[in-house]
Amino acid sequence: MKLYSYWRSTTSYRVRVALHLKGLAFDTIPVDLVAGAQRAPEYIARNPIKGVPTLELDDGTVLTQSLAILEYLDHIAPEPALLPDDPVLRAKVQAAAQIIAMDIHPVNNLKVVSRLKSEHGLSADEGTEWIRHWMSEGFHAYQALLPQGTTYSFSDTPLLCDICLVAQLYNAHRWGVDMSPFARLLEIENHALKLPAFDAARPENQPDAS
Amino acid sequence: MKLYSYWRSTTSYRVRVALHLKGLAFDTIPVDLVAGAQRAPEYIARNPIKGVPTLELDDGTVLTQSLAILEYLDHIAPEPALLPDDPVLRAKVQAAAQIIAMDIHPVNNLKVVSRLKSEHGLSADEGTEWIRHWMSEGFHAYQALLPQGTTYSFSDTPLLCDICLVAQLYNAHRWGVDMSPFARLLEIENHALKLPAFDAARPENQPDAS
Repeated sequence: MKLYSYWRSTTSYRVRVALHLKGLAFDTIPVDLVAGAQRAPEYIARNPIKGVPTLELDDGTVLTQSLAILEYLDHIAPEPALLPDDPVLRAKVQAAAQIIAMDIHPVNNLKVVSRLKSEHGLSADEGTEWIRHWMSEGFHAYQALLPQGTTYSFSDTPLLCDICLVAQLYNAHRWGVDMSPFARLLEIENHALKLPAFDAARPENQPDAS
Repeated sequence: MKLYSYWRSTTSYRVRVALHLKGLAFDTIPVDLVAGAQRAPEYIARNPIKGVPTLELDDGTVLTQSLAILEYLDHIAPEPALLPDDPVLRAKVQAAAQIIAMDIHPVNNLKVVSRLKSEHGLSADEGTEWIRHWMSEGFHAYQALLPQGTTYSFSDTPLLCDICLVAQLYNAHRWGVDMSPFARLLEIENHALKLPAFDAARPENQPDAS
């Protein structure tokens, strides 16, 4: 498999973690978002929303959108499971993942913040404040959904939502979000980053890291 | 079941369609987003991200995030299926749904556009332009993912992505998006809105419509 990925992209990070957790071999094809490589016609033909990641299977099938890819990987390589079998618990894990994937990430995406600056006059500081605001709101909500007494968000092994969380926390540190209200989330991150699959997927361990 | 819903919310609309398609009875509890009812402490206790929809099951279990709720409903009431069994097709349907649910909806959400106006000085016209931009970008990408020759996006019965699309198109019409490049999407909408489940779920047919 080929993973079109950008080292700092949290959505690419999610898929890298899942591939490593499941022991699936893949080649990383870097897509330099800052240089605009996602807008090249040959890339758009694979991924028309002009984002990363894109996963190309060995038969040439192309999959887009990180959460769809994660569920696909969970189907073809069921162990370790990223989603519980119980429908209610599964929905709760997905809802937590979607707080990260819908309420935080899209609003803070590079293309969105760049447009706020280029078209609507936001300064660099205002852009940072925008990013911090949505992360803080989302982390409060995420933390409020968690049960007590588990190592990860809902379980003692990392699930879909933990993958999304840990990738987002990379961004939180990068942008200087005040993490003092989120001790539980930092504990989850601390556990996860000790696992080889998370460590291998970290932005700084990618071939295109700079 | 109780569905906490706002008539114009496209995420509430998604869940209403699924409940009607599957023939599941539910009571609508209106949450007036414009009046700020989603920020009342008793609502936040159910839905800490302060959004709609929220689905409360008969045993008191509370589920949040529309896509997680849709997959839950697909588990407890498998017919008609909202997702195909084949893992690749399933991932493609989910990816299309996620273009709507991640690349369009969150960026245009009421809370996001309100903050752009209140904190960052965007005028009403700039807010409308912002909304139209992301819808147009997302619809182009969505349309590019579709195969030829199906009544709905990927099939001859409506799936998860069609539900997300039809709800988003309501918003596109409301905000005056130029739909001339999106004939295929309008055909899908036209088919869907003839189905009783979609008609019953339309914003204007809700008890809190005004």
